[in-house]
Amino acid sequence: MIGHSFDPGSLTLVGAGPGDPELITLKGIRALESADAVLYDALTNPVLLDHAPASADRLFVGKLKGRPSMPQEEINELIAAQAEGGRHVVRLKGGDPFVFGRGMEELLFAHSRGIRTAVIPGVSASVAAPGTACIPVTHRGVSDSFWVLTGNTADGHISADLDAAIRTNATVVILMGLAAADRIGRRYTEAGKADLPAAIIFEATMPGETVLTGPVGQLGNLAAGAHLSGPATIIIGNVVKLRAMNERTSSTLIHHESRI
Amino acid sequence: MIGHSFDPGSLTLVGAGPGDPELITLKGIRALESADAVLYDALTNPVLLDHAPASADRLFVGKLKGRPSMPQEEINELIAAQAEGGRHVVRLKGGDPFVFGRGMEELLFAHSRGIRTAVIPGVSASVAAPGTACIPVTHRGVSDSFWVLTGNTADGHISADLDAAIRTNATVVILMGLAAADRIGRRYTEAGKADLPAAIIFEATMPGETVLTGPVGQLGNLAAGAHLSGPATIIIGNVVKLRAMNERTSSTLIHHESRI
Repeated sequence: MIGHSFDPGSLTLVGAGPGDPELITLKGIRALESADAVLYDALTNPVLLDHAPASADRLFVGKLKGRPSMPQEEINELIAAQAEGGRHVVRLKGGDPFVFGRGMEELLFAHSRGIRTAVIPGVSASVAAPGTACIPVTHRGVSDSFWVLTGNTADGHISADLDAAIRTNATVVILMGLAAADRIGRRYTEAGKADLPAAIIFEATMPGETVLTGPVGQLGNLAAGAHLSGPATIIIGNVVKLRAMNERTSSTLIHHESRI
Repeated sequence: MIGHSFDPGSLTLVGAGPGDPELITLKGIRALESADAVLYDALTNPVLLDHAPASADRLFVGKLKGRPSMPQEEINELIAAQAEGGRHVVRLKGGDPFVFGRGMEELLFAHSRGIRTAVIPGVSASVAAPGTACIPVTHRGVSDSFWVLTGNTADGHISADLDAAIRTNATVVILMGLAAADRIGRRYTEAGKADLPAAIIFEATMPGETVLTGPVGQLGNLAAGAHLSGPATIIIGNVVKLRAMNERTSSTLIHHESRI
């Protein structure tokens, strides 16, 4: 197989992918296999920890029901303490480490402490959630660009540029936007684009995957009516219609591979 | 290991990742392992074909020097002919199948012929090329959205929404934009943003990876001075500065894993 050298006393940021534990990369698995400590949170599939040696510490740093998540400063210090003890620290991040993952903050902190670092990118839900739901983020004649925003910025808002995004023909993808669905729908409506097709994808790439579609003007109702929670991906634009095209061809022709 | 069922007489679109052959997903490898025929092009690393059984046909459908690439219609017919012969056809696409990959065209064509399909997303260069170069597409306080465009649309232009993108604070990522670098730089300059930092990444995630940075107003000169060709990723926005921050910390602290 291919040779690898992960240094002791180093940090490797690993993109864990969008949910399906087979959507991690081969390189990410190799990093886990050589980990002395793995830091993970609620956005990463715990099945992935099985790739780490039995002797590796598995450290949960995410949010538990009814308890706040560990502050970023504490996570940074934990990474440093482990790496400075000569261990190879793998920080598993949902999706890709640099798509709203605060990965760069951890990397910069490690650098400031003289710790060697590496980054292994991952499959981002921004592309994979719509993709596995048969909604391409780009398609000739329909959309030649896509714009990824968050519904939950550092100060809890939708990305500042949403209104600019609404005025373009770009496919708009919003991560962590479920709580903001009603506000998003109203802003499209105010811009005269209430009829643009939209989808909300829950548990993307997982056995419980649920895809709801409707006009973006009804996004709030769509989200509320779903009675679902957890991370969701919102996608807005005419590419959403392509999913329906496939379904009309024959719903039985579309399948996704069996999962665990 | 994990059980899979890839149907004979079906098409699986597989995202091959951005270049490094270890940046394919485990699920993508499983698909290749059960392939009867693999269709690939110049944007996928040929090393990945080693995952397919020795008995599988390896069909090149890309552009060869001095010869035009196979028309999309011919690729579609080849997929259909193989799948209708009862074979499991894997179509390897560089990056993710739905990021400027024409993947949906192949999927819709297969559906129209009654062929079962599956999609396995991949690591897109739009996020991974900057990421492995220590440029995060998002970072708190710097950028809370990113916009992915192409420098080479169906009719050979830059995505129509580039001017709108320039007026926002979104990180802008342009794929296949090398030939348009000078035009891109001039449009930023005309918008009064000539000083915004930009990077061009050649051979992202591969041993020959080269990263050039400079003000976007000089993007044309940067591209011309590189004397490099091939697929390149352009990234524009203040997140590009974070790479330099890392380098200043200590250039020897940044390393990427050894590659093949």
